[in-house]
Amino acid sequence: MLYKHVALIGLGLIASSICLSLKRSGVPVRITGTSRSSETRLKARELDLCEVFENPVEATKGADLIILCVPVGAMVEVIRELLPYLKSDMTITDVGSVKGGIVESIHSLIPDGVSFIPGHPLAGTEHSGPEAGFESLFDNRWCLLTPLIGTSDSSIQKLREFWKVLGAKVDTMTPQHHDLVLAVTSHVPHLIAYTMVGVADDLAKVTKSEVIDYSAAGFRDFTRIAASDPTMWRDVFLYNKEASLEILDRFTQELSKLEEAVRQGDGELLFNYFSRTREVRRNIVAAGQDTAEPNFGRKIS
Amino acid sequence: MLYKHVALIGLGLIASSICLSLKRSGVPVRITGTSRSSETRLKARELDLCEVFENPVEATKGADLIILCVPVGAMVEVIRELLPYLKSDMTITDVGSVKGGIVESIHSLIPDGVSFIPGHPLAGTEHSGPEAGFESLFDNRWCLLTPLIGTSDSSIQKLREFWKVLGAKVDTMTPQHHDLVLAVTSHVPHLIAYTMVGVADDLAKVTKSEVIDYSAAGFRDFTRIAASDPTMWRDVFLYNKEASLEILDRFTQELSKLEEAVRQGDGELLFNYFSRTREVRRNIVAAGQDTAEPNFGRKIS
Repeated sequence: MLYKHVALIGLGLIASSICLSLKRSGVPVRITGTSRSSETRLKARELDLCEVFENPVEATKGADLIILCVPVGAMVEVIRELLPYLKSDMTITDVGSVKGGIVESIHSLIPDGVSFIPGHPLAGTEHSGPEAGFESLFDNRWCLLTPLIGTSDSSIQKLREFWKVLGAKVDTMTPQHHDLVLAVTSHVPHLIAYTMVGVADDLAKVTKSEVIDYSAAGFRDFTRIAASDPTMWRDVFLYNKEASLEILDRFTQELSKLEEAVRQGDGELLFNYFSRTREVRRNIVAAGQDTAEPNFGRKIS
Repeated sequence: MLYKHVALIGLGLIASSICLSLKRSGVPVRITGTSRSSETRLKARELDLCEVFENPVEATKGADLIILCVPVGAMVEVIRELLPYLKSDMTITDVGSVKGGIVESIHSLIPDGVSFIPGHPLAGTEHSGPEAGFESLFDNRWCLLTPLIGTSDSSIQKLREFWKVLGAKVDTMTPQHHDLVLAVTSHVPHLIAYTMVGVADDLAKVTKSEVIDYSAAGFRDFTRIAASDPTMWRDVFLYNKEASLEILDRFTQELSKLEEAVRQGDGELLFNYFSRTREVRRNIVAAGQDTAEPNFGRKIS
């Protein structure tokens, strides 16, 4: 590996998985980390994830790769704090779920000579915090880099190699395209899962215990997604407003069509629609992005 | 067990799981089955699920429990075919995902002396067909019975025992309440998953390979649900129109609220909404209806 010292800002699910995955690789690298929360720092120390510092400036001293692993909304503040201490030839990346506007805000702050290469590993779980990390989180998952014009190929190549060491596959695209793709594959699905779980939780005509007991009929899948970290997801919708609203609009239009088919009893339209979507699942399994096991192969004790 | 001969109409995922689960129980019972599809009958014979007949009348001859395991839309026709051969003291049940109107249609045909007790095991996977069944499908899952007024307690009790032998827990409710509960926990979640997958598949600005490769960010969970049997789900929306539209309307209203919050950048509303839904997940895991493992504990080779 080409970095000698990786500094993690934030020590949640992604950062702790980076620590564990780096250790698994056996590659010699110093790993330091910091978190605003004393509880998180304590847990990270207990788990022996990395050298833990209270102060971000201390944590990043001498690092050649800084990875921002905090929610998108906290990134600019972190950069402002580190600004006087950033060294030339250092790379800064992040793992945020939104690029677009936030990337521009950060980029405008970064001094010349420092490479800022936005990144986003498409990996995670519904759990959060330093104890939620695991070494195989990035295995065979994609990490999307959205480098800005003027970034040197060699810095991008170094960061690509870094993610490959963690088990990920790497692709690059523009920040704007990233935000549109993620609105489809992640942001809007999360918003509608949150909404459906909210509706169920609200509905006085159906009791909470019915919603819970009878969730195996499909609903429980939505609750997993709707159990994701609220701060992270709030920031996703604050910072990826435009693409989220665009896809949400498409979704609402399409749902109206299906609603009308239900109202009219149009079995042919429903059958054809439901047949087509089966194919998408097959392709995802074939691409190694999900298991073919029924019900994700989950085991319930 | 109190039945001596169980006859299955239809040999898909649910029927084949009933066969395997009954065999696992070791309870002595004759199992016969039939399917309209010669391919399905062939597979069922290869798998040695039960005695397989081409003709439903032959398959149900002498049975004291007939289970309709065909899509809801095919049930009335099956009952009409069997009508001249139904015996007094026999029980007929089904495994359909909708009760309400369809139950009334069937009930009006059933002769006196024959107990018709509608049922619905809340268990399944995205796979279908006789080879998709497995013996533990019903373990710790709920089976809802929606008995009609006038059904004898002893027949209901017998059917309860049957489902317990298969590993299920049993509850009873009215057909109308069943359809409302399932609209929330199953039917509308499926419709919105189908819609989201359809939108993604349609969107020319995001390529199909992007949708597939980057699905691990949340979307892939939707594709599992949207890979369910199209015939079954068409019938669900044809026969549970009223409750589905009611819940869909609630969902659409709630989604508009969240959409407005995104548009207005109302982080507080979003954060509070996303925090509340996390609790529902915890309760489902605590109730033994899902695994606490991250990402359902799925393993992707």
